[in-house]
Amino acid sequence: MKPWKTLGSTKIVSDRWLHLTADRCALDSGKIIDPYYVMHEKDWVIVFAQTEDARILVVRQFRYAAGVFCSELPGGVVDEGESPLQAAERELLEETGHSAPDWVAIGSMYANPVRQTNSIHVFFAKGAQLVSEQKLDHGEELTFHLATLGEVERMIDSNEFSHSLHVASFYRVLAFLAAGT
Amino acid sequence: MKPWKTLGSTKIVSDRWLHLTADRCALDSGKIIDPYYVMHEKDWVIVFAQTEDARILVVRQFRYAAGVFCSELPGGVVDEGESPLQAAERELLEETGHSAPDWVAIGSMYANPVRQTNSIHVFFAKGAQLVSEQKLDHGEELTFHLATLGEVERMIDSNEFSHSLHVASFYRVLAFLAAGT
Repeated sequence: MKPWKTLGSTKIVSDRWLHLTADRCALDSGKIIDPYYVMHEKDWVIVFAQTEDARILVVRQFRYAAGVFCSELPGGVVDEGESPLQAAERELLEETGHSAPDWVAIGSMYANPVRQTNSIHVFFAKGAQLVSEQKLDHGEELTFHLATLGEVERMIDSNEFSHSLHVASFYRVLAFLAAGT
Repeated sequence: MKPWKTLGSTKIVSDRWLHLTADRCALDSGKIIDPYYVMHEKDWVIVFAQTEDARILVVRQFRYAAGVFCSELPGGVVDEGESPLQAAERELLEETGHSAPDWVAIGSMYANPVRQTNSIHVFFAKGAQLVSEQKLDHGEELTFHLATLGEVERMIDSNEFSHSLHVASFYRVLAFLAAGT
């Protein structure tokens, strides 16, 4: 198998929210796929932040496309000029008012490599403490609370913590913690 | 917090590959978000299929949007008129030529509830056996192999198994297996 070739790319939407192209692709076999839609996205960060007493910061917000309230980890977009770590620190502070002295980069993975260009960078923040108020973006309505590991696991089973990118990130940090013991 | 209201919805793309709308949304606070892009998707299935000798079926294919080859679990779209289990059985057979006598529905989660409407249904298939050739869709170029649990875990760490929806699904099955022992 070889990578596909891009024979052409047409902009469908290009604004601050979405950069969507319709590409014309050639497979190694000679097959042509046209259109193949691609969402050109900035990278995202997701933060597993734990307090000294081993509780995890969980945020809850309405997710419009699926029409549900989701419990998730803090996170968001890596802005222009920011490193993933800087974005992770900023998002944790904005969404929960917490900062942490000790950060571990757990790894990266693709948000959805079939349709999107971007990666998620997963961080483990240790010793998180409340240091300020939330500072939410325009349009963000978000609450946060602290949960034990077992509580998050039960929220995954009950579909309350049901954003799969956050499920993947949560378990990657658990695997990191299990490997360290 | 209350669910957002949809004040309007405009079709941007509607073909067999993508159904994208630009919605006008009202938050409980009175804030208006316009446009809010929504991808209306069919549900997907992902299958953790294990052979009698405890090896896992892993597929590998080129993922055009991210421009990478990804190792993943078998899976795909739930077609019209199919149950998630039927789709899971069909995708496992088409992609790997394997079938299994024993299936467990592990749970569902949202693919990306921020932007997409759909859920992923995760299945654990036990006792998978080779019964036929692959039957790939138009445009699918896909190989499969068998890997141990530890090999998949190492592929996640090394970013070779890096599609986050598949990482989430893999760990959900591991959590199910751990809970049963």
